Amino acid sequence: VRAGRPYNGRRGGPVRNLKLTLAYVGTRFAGWQVQPGLDTVQGILEARLGAMLRERVRLLGAGRTDAGVHARGQVASFTTASRIPPEGLRRGLNARLPDDIRVLAVEEAPAGFHAREHALSKEYHYRIVRGEVVSPFETPFALWVYRSLDVAAMQAAAAGLRGRHDFTSFCAAGSTVRSRVRTVFESEVAEEGTFVVYRVRADGFLQHMVRTIAGTLLLAGSRRLDPGAIPAVLGAMDRRRAGPCAPPRGLFLVKVHYGEAT
Amino acid sequence: VRAGRPYNGRRGGPVRNLKLTLAYVGTRFAGWQVQPGLDTVQGILEARLGAMLRERVRLLGAGRTDAGVHARGQVASFTTASRIPPEGLRRGLNARLPDDIRVLAVEEAPAGFHAREHALSKEYHYRIVRGEVVSPFETPFALWVYRSLDVAAMQAAAAGLRGRHDFTSFCAAGSTVRSRVRTVFESEVAEEGTFVVYRVRADGFLQHMVRTIAGTLLLAGSRRLDPGAIPAVLGAMDRRRAGPCAPPRGLFLVKVHYGEAT
Repeated sequence: VRAGRPYNGRRGGPVRNLKLTLAYVGTRFAGWQVQPGLDTVQGILEARLGAMLRERVRLLGAGRTDAGVHARGQVASFTTASRIPPEGLRRGLNARLPDDIRVLAVEEAPAGFHAREHALSKEYHYRIVRGEVVSPFETPFALWVYRSLDVAAMQAAAAGLRGRHDFTSFCAAGSTVRSRVRTVFESEVAEEGTFVVYRVRADGFLQHMVRTIAGTLLLAGSRRLDPGAIPAVLGAMDRRRAGPCAPPRGLFLVKVHYGEAT
Repeated sequence: VRAGRPYNGRRGGPVRNLKLTLAYVGTRFAGWQVQPGLDTVQGILEARLGAMLRERVRLLGAGRTDAGVHARGQVASFTTASRIPPEGLRRGLNARLPDDIRVLAVEEAPAGFHAREHALSKEYHYRIVRGEVVSPFETPFALWVYRSLDVAAMQAAAAGLRGRHDFTSFCAAGSTVRSRVRTVFESEVAEEGTFVVYRVRADGFLQHMVRTIAGTLLLAGSRRLDPGAIPAVLGAMDRRRAGPCAPPRGLFLVKVHYGEAT
């Protein structure tokens, strides 16, 4: 590979930048990011794309979803020298992928487009299902909560997270990220039948951030945390002040926003 | 075990008859019925109930769902000498069962109640999902059909199956059942967004009957079978005249009716 030339440009055609929109059931995966010896969404996609295009493909994913987290609208970009039209790529790739990963769309992207760096915001949902018995069809896709929840308290706590804050209290203790300041554009809890759904949109997320928020909202919902204490929890910049990290099965990466008004 | 005494009556209490209402995701099971060396719903339930009650438990299931078929309202009955109240049985059993099998309800049933023999009718749904790409969250629970479907033709074909008929043409070729006459009370196709759902209620079902009907409706939907030919297909009493057996993942046992008007 010569310097200044993309490694997968070897067929001499113009290098294209492509944007994939993806959905996957996270249950059996060790998360998005490639890890040697483990089934990851990125790893499977890169292997199938590589076999199909006969190139080494490197995907740039918008969100690094954890093990067990689902996606309805993950976005990933990659460059290729292939001339296969987007529609053919989508069909060919879906034919090669396992059923629990689907390519919803393939689009041409501008040169230099980077799925993560150019994302203006990402939207996650955390789903909670209540009731004496949870349907086995919902168990993999929601956190079951037996006790009753004070949804108004959860809504008040969620509202307290909106805005620009240092989210250290909601970040995995081992994280080595430099800045923990993020802007939360939307943060709301809605009751939908037996479900309680938390929706959050921000310019970026720290490791375990949505799950730690969900665990904290559940503390408020079970009246073990005053929703009015959220500013103090944020201000403490101490992971021990927030609630536990809720399990991954309730979490969905729903949408990545590019170029829209935030 | 003495003659005339139930084998599980050893604690000397009055023998109770109990009715379980069950939901399960059929994907990983070799069907309802116990088969040595395979994971079956009946086998797992009998093992967990037996361990909990310290009795040998024999479940009578209303429907013998095939491998991969789901249930939202399967019913099973069993006798026990246990005095645990229904609510305690439900909770204890759910705590011991894998997440993909759930006990929705436990009720006291009259002496002699038999979940299969006393069922007046059973209701199954077969789900079809259309579109260029199917959501990975739907793949395990619906048959994906890429081509467009003539839903009106499917509706006409479904209507032709109502009533009392010999369903030999829709019965697995290897079946050894004596009478293949069944009464179909409801048989209808509904369009629900990207889904097409077939609903059928009958006094009984033959092996592969709903899936073979679904496969036949799909022939009508793709204009490879005239819906007006259904009476002739029934009249032929020849399995080769109906369509293929559709895959199990779209099929749900939804409800078992007892004592209501049919």
